[in-house]
Amino acid sequence: MPASATPRSLEPIGFSIPANVPTHWYNLNADLPTPVPPHLHPGTREPLTPADLAPLFPMALIAQEVSTERYIEIPQVVREIYAQWRPAPLVRAHRLERELGTPARIYYKYEGVSPVGSHKPNTAVPQVYYNAIEGITKLTTETGAGQWGASLAMACSMLGLTCEVWQVRASYDSKPYRRMQMETYGSVCHSSPSDLTEAGRAILAATPDTTGSLGMAISEAVEVAVGDPNAHYSLGSVLNHVMLHQSVIGIEALDQLDQAGEAQADVVFGCAGGGSNLAGLSFPFIGKNLREGTTTRVVACEPAACPSLTQGEYRYDHGDVAGLTPLLKMHTLGTDFVPPAIHAGGLRYHGMSPMVSHTVELGLMEAVAIEQDDAFAAGILFARVEGIVPAPESTHALAAALAYARTVTEPEVIVIGLSGNGALDLPAYAEYV
Amino acid sequence: MPASATPRSLEPIGFSIPANVPTHWYNLNADLPTPVPPHLHPGTREPLTPADLAPLFPMALIAQEVSTERYIEIPQVVREIYAQWRPAPLVRAHRLERELGTPARIYYKYEGVSPVGSHKPNTAVPQVYYNAIEGITKLTTETGAGQWGASLAMACSMLGLTCEVWQVRASYDSKPYRRMQMETYGSVCHSSPSDLTEAGRAILAATPDTTGSLGMAISEAVEVAVGDPNAHYSLGSVLNHVMLHQSVIGIEALDQLDQAGEAQADVVFGCAGGGSNLAGLSFPFIGKNLREGTTTRVVACEPAACPSLTQGEYRYDHGDVAGLTPLLKMHTLGTDFVPPAIHAGGLRYHGMSPMVSHTVELGLMEAVAIEQDDAFAAGILFARVEGIVPAPESTHALAAALAYARTVTEPEVIVIGLSGNGALDLPAYAEYV
Repeated sequence: MPASATPRSLEPIGFSIPANVPTHWYNLNADLPTPVPPHLHPGTREPLTPADLAPLFPMALIAQEVSTERYIEIPQVVREIYAQWRPAPLVRAHRLERELGTPARIYYKYEGVSPVGSHKPNTAVPQVYYNAIEGITKLTTETGAGQWGASLAMACSMLGLTCEVWQVRASYDSKPYRRMQMETYGSVCHSSPSDLTEAGRAILAATPDTTGSLGMAISEAVEVAVGDPNAHYSLGSVLNHVMLHQSVIGIEALDQLDQAGEAQADVVFGCAGGGSNLAGLSFPFIGKNLREGTTTRVVACEPAACPSLTQGEYRYDHGDVAGLTPLLKMHTLGTDFVPPAIHAGGLRYHGMSPMVSHTVELGLMEAVAIEQDDAFAAGILFARVEGIVPAPESTHALAAALAYARTVTEPEVIVIGLSGNGALDLPAYAEYV
Repeated sequence: MPASATPRSLEPIGFSIPANVPTHWYNLNADLPTPVPPHLHPGTREPLTPADLAPLFPMALIAQEVSTERYIEIPQVVREIYAQWRPAPLVRAHRLERELGTPARIYYKYEGVSPVGSHKPNTAVPQVYYNAIEGITKLTTETGAGQWGASLAMACSMLGLTCEVWQVRASYDSKPYRRMQMETYGSVCHSSPSDLTEAGRAILAATPDTTGSLGMAISEAVEVAVGDPNAHYSLGSVLNHVMLHQSVIGIEALDQLDQAGEAQADVVFGCAGGGSNLAGLSFPFIGKNLREGTTTRVVACEPAACPSLTQGEYRYDHGDVAGLTPLLKMHTLGTDFVPPAIHAGGLRYHGMSPMVSHTVELGLMEAVAIEQDDAFAAGILFARVEGIVPAPESTHALAAALAYARTVTEPEVIVIGLSGNGALDLPAYAEYV
């Protein structure tokens, strides 16, 4: 089935948007004591120029990638779409607190209310918008569990672009609902590695039984975008502009904590795959620490099976297997790392956002690795007490937060990033139960 | 795997709940010009007494079933759980209006933000609560598509009850994610008809290849509840107390329209299976029509494949196949009606809520039947323009509303009941696409 897109207006509708929908994104690069090391050209190893990125990204996103402006205005069209589900709720987990017998006040910031059930539309919508206004008619991307692919598919359908997605084979085979979701939005989803690209064919020739990886799928999506003048590539995590767009999560959370009468958050827990949910939630807190002297701790929670922050090297590495992408300074397990088929498909990436990596190196954020069984146990407890079945990714933040809350002896404020719901990950829960 | 439940406190937590979470349910029986015909005892055909219902339901719900009080206070514990996701958003469908080129102002009341993605927890939570405080430790129920079973499973896990569900075979086989959801909450889900009950065994002996029906599954769940002194039965639609609990939908919608500056809704569209989403959304509007002279039209949208309101007889009939339930005065296709395996599993019921049926008979509500292809086409358009993949049930309301909006020549206010999202119904969409 070919991808199809119906053209849509890119004009704002012009309705009045509630004031609690953020007007600007927050850019941590404005407040970091030392700058994030630049991305390098894969051939020359010199810092990238805008021209190097132009085959892949629109100029607006390239500018955001290197911006050190603290606040960047959210386009009206994007804000109008955000307003359909934002602000996402910050919910006090009263029942969970009672169950744990903790004196801590636990809040979860719930991104599962978005149309696709995760935080990914926060960056999919602006990425599609900036491409659309520069005349691009098609986007390609990779996806793991499928939350990103479904989000880009949604944004493309809403703004009239064609969308083609390469999904990591392990998830493509085990989680067919996400592919169906992309198809419902009119996108096409391929299992990666595929025989549609040179990169895919080379990988299949060398390792025909591979379960795939995000690094492989990125190579395929990039190759197709580069070969089509009307197409660009879109990345759902890792890059600076993605962290920027996701900052709406933390901006809202700070505001919502204030509304709830909390002076500050003591600890923020977020799950870490490529880093976008974690950064989106925590960077506004870290910026506030740096500017205003608050003392919020931030804990990155990654899977023990894919431990880039806690076990990887901090060095320049490619974002993909074929070496098509720029070199990024990041915590990496190496581009040839093929993670086991863990259930938290969204956390199966060999590298980590350069901004998150740098923030950890500077000591502004901690990192822990969580075993899958502990993550599921926390997810089940949360589901049965609070009612929401969390995304498997989010359960890593839950596991760390619950372990911490059980040790707390004084009232403290804990914020958990609940990056999405687990509606389309139920087979993983069923297997665990 | 046996059902398991961890005991939970039934005490309110006592936190401050936002004022826009309803404090009372609204009961249309207080305002109807003539009363709904009473339920009859299946043996004597005399009006039911509370004692007749006591083996199945707690006294609080039996009292609500026959109440003519206009407003009934929502228990604090229930309201605290509602507050986790209520008020559910009323969203102006700006992008859809532009796509249709209609002068109408279209709003959708979106129940998909609940933990299970539908409106069903609105009644699951109070039903479990009233049973729990009367000492019941286990609930049984039937489910079609699985939204109700998952909602009761969720409420039982949150309030510490065991839950056992009989799911219509057609859905059990085609939509395994809902069963997994129930299991994640600690419930057990059986395919119906099953060999676990006399009713099930009799049906299997007569029609071994049946795809099942809600009427059959009800017989099984009722039989098990009656045989266990610690167990009760719970019904997700049809009965008066369910319509009462769902009134939070319409109470909020009236308030939200007022906040949006709308003097009144001109037309309300709701999908109709057993009637609970439709009644929940529309009864507060109908009550306002009766009390205050507003002129909101209400349109019940049912599937052409299961057309109880538009094709059924209005007469006393059983709610189940085995004739275990009371006789209800309702629009019915007959208890032996086995609907085709349409995708909107939640609308596959032979009867209709007596309150909805009576309201239609009184001319206070209209009814239309929608073809499945028209429903899916409306759902796909909505998904691609507004971003949300609607529940197949909800697409019946969408189809009727969109057809109407295309004919409108003056500004009018249209409200659509978006009873849930279609995350767990994606195979049906994939098949249609």
